[in-house]
Amino acid sequence: MEIKRHEQEKILSHAVEYGNTVYLAGIVAKDLTRGVKGQTEEILGEIDRLLAIAGSNKSRILSATIWLTDIRNRPAMNEAWSAWIDTRNLPARACVEAKLADPGMLVEIALVAAK
Amino acid sequence: MEIKRHEQEKILSHAVEYGNTVYLAGIVAKDLTRGVKGQTEEILGEIDRLLAIAGSNKSRILSATIWLTDIRNRPAMNEAWSAWIDTRNLPARACVEAKLADPGMLVEIALVAAK
Amino acid sequence: MEIKRHEQEKILSHAVEYGNTVYLAGIVAKDLTRGVKGQTEEILGEIDRLLAIAGSNKSRILSATIWLTDIRNRPAMNEAWSAWIDTRNLPARACVEAKLADPGMLVEIALVAAK
Repeated sequence: MEIKRHEQEKILSHAVEYGNTVYLAGIVAKDLTRGVKGQTEEILGEIDRLLAIAGSNKSRILSATIWLTDIRNRPAMNEAWSAWIDTRNLPARACVEAKLADPGMLVEIALVAAK
Repeated sequence: MEIKRHEQEKILSHAVEYGNTVYLAGIVAKDLTRGVKGQTEEILGEIDRLLAIAGSNKSRILSATIWLTDIRNRPAMNEAWSAWIDTRNLPARACVEAKLADPGMLVEIALVAAK
Repeated sequence: MEIKRHEQEKILSHAVEYGNTVYLAGIVAKDLTRGVKGQTEEILGEIDRLLAIAGSNKSRILSATIWLTDIRNRPAMNEAWSAWIDTRNLPARACVEAKLADPGMLVEIALVAAK
């Protein structure tokens, strides 16, 4: 099966297609002045963009992993998540706490989607 | 390929089938009065139930990710894991420390399985 | 589709093939006297070995998850990663902080690859 790699930069690709499955890198916000809800909104917009490039969309997400630097931010992250996600097509999901690459990053989301 | 989503609730599905692959959400115990071994036993029972719904079973697990709130609980988690897992059909596995959604949750397990 | 499990030991397999996809366990270094760059080099060598056993190689990696016990070690880990990875075929990647099974382990890498 064919592999297609999108937006490769130095150490990783932002999206990788393999057959009918799409793998997204851990996506973080660029604007780190925003709170966890705002950063999540930026991330979810970027996920929309990457899924479109890879021939998928948010109604086709299979599984998502969410890391929060402070697990107490889960409700604020979920506000953005709930407003965005296709509620008839919900992915499997895990959400745990972890420090991220930059202290200003409050949330990171990686996922696997179907084309 | 067809996507089938099982037990959708508000923000996630507990199991998602895609073709011949099954993705389970991060599963946690409901009875948080139990220690790490007891919580792991409850989670593994829930995994049995979800895999059955999705047309799979524990002998078909491909990969598992395990989060412990205290990595020193790994031996107690492994007691329950070792008693449960099909030792002739062991999955790839990673086990790391992470805080979880509720302070009483001691372990969370997500996995990918074959149908 | 057929499942092939490689190097099963007690609680996990080090590599699992399913159809044309390969799942590697979270790989850690054996020589814990080395720093994060050295441990990463050992892990990447082990990944080369396991991917070869499973009929894949580093140019076919789809997605990688990297855990560092101290996220400030990301640059040192990336030195080893950048020297090793096929820069024309970069995987999706997420890198977060997490304590690992042994206090001496500084980095752990799990991944999914295409055959």
